[in-house]
Amino acid sequence: MIKTCQLDLEKELVRLLDWLGGFGKDSEGGTTRFLYSPEWTEAQQGLENLMKEEGFRVQYDEVGNLFGRLEGTTYQNETVLTGSHVDTVKNGGSYDGQLGIVAGFLALKYLKETYGQPLRNLEVVSMAEEEGSRFPYTFWGSKNITGTAKRSEVENITDINGISFVEAMKEAGFGFRDESREIRKDVRAFIELHAEQGGVLEIEQTPIGIVQYIVGQRRFTIEVSGEANHAGTTPMGYRKDAMIAASRMITAINDIAVKYGDPLVATVGKVEVKPNIVNVVPGKVIFTIDCRHTHNNELVKATEEIQETIKKIAEQTGVNLDIDLWMDAVPVPMDERLVKMFQGQCEKNDLSYKLMHSGAGHDAQIMAELAPTAMLFVPSHKGISHSPIEFTEPKDLAEGVKALIGVLFELGYKEEL
Amino acid sequence: MIKTCQLDLEKELVRLLDWLGGFGKDSEGGTTRFLYSPEWTEAQQGLENLMKEEGFRVQYDEVGNLFGRLEGTTYQNETVLTGSHVDTVKNGGSYDGQLGIVAGFLALKYLKETYGQPLRNLEVVSMAEEEGSRFPYTFWGSKNITGTAKRSEVENITDINGISFVEAMKEAGFGFRDESREIRKDVRAFIELHAEQGGVLEIEQTPIGIVQYIVGQRRFTIEVSGEANHAGTTPMGYRKDAMIAASRMITAINDIAVKYGDPLVATVGKVEVKPNIVNVVPGKVIFTIDCRHTHNNELVKATEEIQETIKKIAEQTGVNLDIDLWMDAVPVPMDERLVKMFQGQCEKNDLSYKLMHSGAGHDAQIMAELAPTAMLFVPSHKGISHSPIEFTEPKDLAEGVKALIGVLFELGYKEEL
Repeated sequence: MIKTCQLDLEKELVRLLDWLGGFGKDSEGGTTRFLYSPEWTEAQQGLENLMKEEGFRVQYDEVGNLFGRLEGTTYQNETVLTGSHVDTVKNGGSYDGQLGIVAGFLALKYLKETYGQPLRNLEVVSMAEEEGSRFPYTFWGSKNITGTAKRSEVENITDINGISFVEAMKEAGFGFRDESREIRKDVRAFIELHAEQGGVLEIEQTPIGIVQYIVGQRRFTIEVSGEANHAGTTPMGYRKDAMIAASRMITAINDIAVKYGDPLVATVGKVEVKPNIVNVVPGKVIFTIDCRHTHNNELVKATEEIQETIKKIAEQTGVNLDIDLWMDAVPVPMDERLVKMFQGQCEKNDLSYKLMHSGAGHDAQIMAELAPTAMLFVPSHKGISHSPIEFTEPKDLAEGVKALIGVLFELGYKEEL
Repeated sequence: MIKTCQLDLEKELVRLLDWLGGFGKDSEGGTTRFLYSPEWTEAQQGLENLMKEEGFRVQYDEVGNLFGRLEGTTYQNETVLTGSHVDTVKNGGSYDGQLGIVAGFLALKYLKETYGQPLRNLEVVSMAEEEGSRFPYTFWGSKNITGTAKRSEVENITDINGISFVEAMKEAGFGFRDESREIRKDVRAFIELHAEQGGVLEIEQTPIGIVQYIVGQRRFTIEVSGEANHAGTTPMGYRKDAMIAASRMITAINDIAVKYGDPLVATVGKVEVKPNIVNVVPGKVIFTIDCRHTHNNELVKATEEIQETIKKIAEQTGVNLDIDLWMDAVPVPMDERLVKMFQGQCEKNDLSYKLMHSGAGHDAQIMAELAPTAMLFVPSHKGISHSPIEFTEPKDLAEGVKALIGVLFELGYKEEL
């Protein structure tokens, strides 16, 4: 049993989230903390000082990922890592990303205070970037830890103000990773605690979600070409209405997704109609499909069925169809042993949990390439995320951190890994 | 039998359409001739001179409608009127509107040359405005002839450059109609020849359409409100996807229109999705419905069925619905006797014709308030209209004018009206 004082833990979590959210507080009441901005630098420096005060050994890597370490007494070449990303979206809230850093910090602080130095290194990481909100590049932090970020991918990109990635990085005091150097071999596990960013845990009144898979995603752009015509003088039988064809396709896509059932989701989020005039039969409709699943074979099967179906509808309605698959990311399973370890900790500590998947992307899916990885969710009120009003009950935050503490203890303080 | 020289008539029609289309020739190869613009004034003056050269008695009314008259020998208080509007849309072609003026002019010229002065007045009118392309007001020309245009409706409107309607009118040398004065009582018939602006005549290889009805129109804006959610983390069962609901509605509207069959048409031309982002479940969709029919009871019945159906879909899909009916124009029947007269003329002259309706609005629907009215269509190549590439075969133009000549002869040169 983890013997934390529940109220103290809740209070500390809320206090640290508020404090960290204050770096980059924007005029609309949210937090805007873009990679390598002054607010970002201040946040990392604030965390650096916080960790130092607790006696953690603090270190930045070349690109600005910040690590705070409790040194292991016995297995000094073995590290258990926990944390998340410090950057935010524009006008974001106080949970996305920074919750994982604050949770990791408090877990290590509690463990050190309660059990002293661990057998192997315990590290909390405040990763430089995940959101892609400033520059058109995501997972810059975790992809530099795993060595998959390439210098060439960011050398020519700029932010909305024309400031180049490289210039901003230099300005903040960082530079490229030495790509010839080997990546870290000491990491034995990575654990990320994150807000769910969906409404399932709240609806099911469960404080903890143990992630088994991060979904794969396939995204398409569909172009439906019919014939623009006068809405008054073109009889129904003489039309090639792109919007009617698109509506039948969108309905069919939804029916297929519902038929497959969880964990498949398919969304038509963006629809553009041309010429988009009240008295003109639409000549063209361009829409997107975002399809996700935890298992790649099912994801491929579903998207193939979707493609076959919309092709049939195009034939039936006499429109032309162009299908462009522009994102194809495979699902990432979390480590089964770590999942079981979390289940065990929840059961031992009377914490109710749900085995689930993550429908959103996270640093954990990148880190899984480096080491056995696990992810823990706490509820997002009404599923709201990327908003100043994102919120998790302090009680649920504390239960998530208790589960994290339990697993970090197992991994850091026991001989067997 | 109308003994025109077919080739001369074709040549004259093409020459005059080209000549008139030259007033307001724009940089994109079309004609842009907005109400009260310098190009508009030049076109009216050009037509004035043309009519004078043929010995027509020429007169403008207060707002700038131009009339050219062949005086009747016997019934000088009775006038048969033909013509259409001289204004164009932005980057329009050489047929819409000006064809009716050129056709009327040539018909009167032919009749005068062949049969001399008529028993009652024959007049061709070049109406000031129909399109509403410069100012947000349509049918300014015909509504001033029928006395339904009100000073108050245009007093506060401006064009896109901020020039007021009143200022532009004054600048062109015109002013408001004296609303206390009675409207013309001498008009015994109005006949408008126009390009179809649809593809029916071409598809059915028929040179002449005799219009029986100008359709009524009901237009709606439909707002569908669901819930915007994360496309990855919101299972299908937890969604209120406004786009799925809207797609089912749009499909159902089309199915209802097809079920009713001609002459009903229903079009969803404009669709806006919010927030319209690839990875967000749409929270709101706003779309328009444009529904038309030749008979008001059928139009009302169809639109009521549409409303009931989309309400049911809203209930089934758990979204909120707001329905706004913002246009409700009743159908206008053409004069049955004139329709029969055109049928008779076509048959006598071996011209193949189709009894049809107009799916678009025309000056004829306004003029029908004043006098028995008829409309004649000639084919629009591929149904194209409001474009520099709108086109009608010269042969078809000539056949339309022959039918017009035949009916104007019946109305103008025979004792019985």
